[in-house]
Amino acid sequence: MPRTAAEQRNHDLVMGLFAEVLNPLDSRAVDRFIAPDYIQHSQLAPPGRDALKAFLDWAKGQNPGAVHDIKRSFVEGDHVVVHYHVRRNADDPGLAVIDIFRIEDGLIAEHWDVLQDVASGGPNPNSMF
Amino acid sequence: MPRTAAEQRNHDLVMGLFAEVLNPLDSRAVDRFIAPDYIQHSQLAPPGRDALKAFLDWAKGQNPGAVHDIKRSFVEGDHVVVHYHVRRNADDPGLAVIDIFRIEDGLIAEHWDVLQDVASGGPNPNSMF
Repeated sequence: MPRTAAEQRNHDLVMGLFAEVLNPLDSRAVDRFIAPDYIQHSQLAPPGRDALKAFLDWAKGQNPGAVHDIKRSFVEGDHVVVHYHVRRNADDPGLAVIDIFRIEDGLIAEHWDVLQDVASGGPNPNSMF
Repeated sequence: MPRTAAEQRNHDLVMGLFAEVLNPLDSRAVDRFIAPDYIQHSQLAPPGRDALKAFLDWAKGQNPGAVHDIKRSFVEGDHVVVHYHVRRNADDPGLAVIDIFRIEDGLIAEHWDVLQDVASGGPNPNSMF
């Protein structure tokens, strides 16, 4: 079940987003990955590409050492899914996040996410990851 | 980028889980979908297949009319991803959930999820879905 060339390009684009935008919280690199008419479904930021840049600048000010630790990722057609653990600082248990990206014409055109605090003491001793 | 026959079988298995187990909260159908040594990462239930059955029975008692509304789903190889809106009752704004399932030998062998309350009033007027 190998990826098609287009699927690999889509997956590479999203891995680039994590490496060059999300991990360094670098709003200057956004335009190389995100479409101008980007549809945002995350509740963290207002709609649009400029709002994403403003959110990244805010997050970098708040948590300059935040880490996005990718656990697994998948691609089917023009959708890429990434499951990761984001820690805002060294003491942060962090959040479990799954992102879904839709790619169109070589850029990310739409984004959904779901976030949950990593907690301990629940009924399941297994890791969320 | 068509699915392989194995990918379609894996996707069908997970759609069957939603139709026959999760939507009706029917613990009796679990064994047809879930492997005996199932690895559970969800923080909702203790590890294992029997704990999943007990969780389903509890949830059915709490919320017999719960609805799992699938918004989109993907498969790559032996992993299936489902993004859905679960509402516990008619008045519930519900939860956004993304599940990741790993299939092995025709049964679900491992499961991760991330859950987030559907809220209003945040910075993004777009739907989470």
